[in-house]
Amino acid sequence: MIWWLSMNELIVLKLGGSVITRKEEKEFEINSENLKRISKEIANALNERDFGLVIVHGAGSFGHLPAKRYELYKGLRNKTQLMGFSIAHKSMQYLNLHVIDYLQKSGINAIPYQASAVGILSNGRLVHFPTTIIKKLVEMNIVPVSHGDVLIDEKMGIGILSGDHLVPYLAKKLNATRVIIATDVDGIYTKDPKKNEDAEFLREINSNTISKIEEIGTSNAIDVTGGMKRKLQELLELVRFGIESEIISGTKHGILERALKGERNLGSIIKF
Amino acid sequence: MIWWLSMNELIVLKLGGSVITRKEEKEFEINSENLKRISKEIANALNERDFGLVIVHGAGSFGHLPAKRYELYKGLRNKTQLMGFSIAHKSMQYLNLHVIDYLQKSGINAIPYQASAVGILSNGRLVHFPTTIIKKLVEMNIVPVSHGDVLIDEKMGIGILSGDHLVPYLAKKLNATRVIIATDVDGIYTKDPKKNEDAEFLREINSNTISKIEEIGTSNAIDVTGGMKRKLQELLELVRFGIESEIISGTKHGILERALKGERNLGSIIKF
Repeated sequence: MIWWLSMNELIVLKLGGSVITRKEEKEFEINSENLKRISKEIANALNERDFGLVIVHGAGSFGHLPAKRYELYKGLRNKTQLMGFSIAHKSMQYLNLHVIDYLQKSGINAIPYQASAVGILSNGRLVHFPTTIIKKLVEMNIVPVSHGDVLIDEKMGIGILSGDHLVPYLAKKLNATRVIIATDVDGIYTKDPKKNEDAEFLREINSNTISKIEEIGTSNAIDVTGGMKRKLQELLELVRFGIESEIISGTKHGILERALKGERNLGSIIKF
Repeated sequence: MIWWLSMNELIVLKLGGSVITRKEEKEFEINSENLKRISKEIANALNERDFGLVIVHGAGSFGHLPAKRYELYKGLRNKTQLMGFSIAHKSMQYLNLHVIDYLQKSGINAIPYQASAVGILSNGRLVHFPTTIIKKLVEMNIVPVSHGDVLIDEKMGIGILSGDHLVPYLAKKLNATRVIIATDVDGIYTKDPKKNEDAEFLREINSNTISKIEEIGTSNAIDVTGGMKRKLQELLELVRFGIESEIISGTKHGILERALKGERNLGSIIKF
């Protein structure tokens, strides 16, 4: 009936909001050039070799602006937030649709996967997110494309699911072999390299080097979704499960393609 | 923390594909006038009285064209269909986004609810579709908007979930009080009234009158999603669970609003 993928390898790929959207410009603007190039790079890798792929993209301004404006990250406190909840959802669906569109045009069998339809948070942490359907989709050579979203939260009414929290959760539950985080920087520095001359680039992140990092971000996702260090900590915990992660540039030509094709040490790696 | 809706009444509303899209015209065209008017009618009803609302919309050409072209209703038989699966998803997401947009502009806290993220079919029938999240959304005064979709099918690989199959399934599982089906006709006739002068309009559908119906459709959904009679049969089965259904016009001004406000016998009713 079906061409099941031999699931020797499963990559969970995060496309940072800062890579696929433009922050500086209009409120809601997709970075078409980046998306087009990235889609081709992913397609090239998928054409060269067989691997399962799950994509999670960030929200960029599409999620952060409504999240801030309606204070959705504070939980459900007033009725006005319900419209904010609705607006954030529409906005994320719009962004997701465009990501799907670009992937599809590059020949990738991508489909949307709405995190808020299946996931439940408790104080901002995922406590429920069944992955049966995602698994089946991947086995069928389909690429599910999920994203940061606003979810039901058992404790707070509503809460923000950041893509950076969803990625390690999925990687663990799906027994992924690898996590790739494509951001707008080359990897992780100890300090913001734009502001600090003595910022040190970390080729490898482990329980020693992580302590050197001052609270800075690789992306604009910090504000409503929690700090960078916590995100790295979650990736570091994946090592125990045999899953390595790498934070690479998604804005520089060809890096993502090389990473997906199997190359390592293109950014900051978190491994055993 | 939250303004829980007193859930005395829960309506599952189907918006027929033939109501919200244009079939005759371009391949993919939304019926903006209908959608705008319908959104207002729903908003008026929600403003007048408290009731829980779940919306399921049909696919119209957005779903039927890719479903036919890639023979998705036959199950997964070849690799080309995977791109069809992806295209059908994108197309439905596009339609859903526009439905959400119109509802939101009328002040309704509508959010997308992707059926294929949670539902699993077996030979075309839903065997799995958790409703915990939908329930919570409704209790929070949010209107989840789902739609016909292409799903994983345990037996066939992939299969079509028609909105008309999802509606009674949800109504039963959510303990809905009422189902309203808004279509492009006034209700159910025994024959196609456009072609048969002796076509009889059925004010009430029950196990007796259903046998009078010849296989015709109230919508263009027949082709890929199964016959009209089977759909009515599913609504008829809801009567046992105390859920009444009514098939009304979604194209004539004001009918839907009156139905949502509590009026009965505006079309063909299926009740105890």
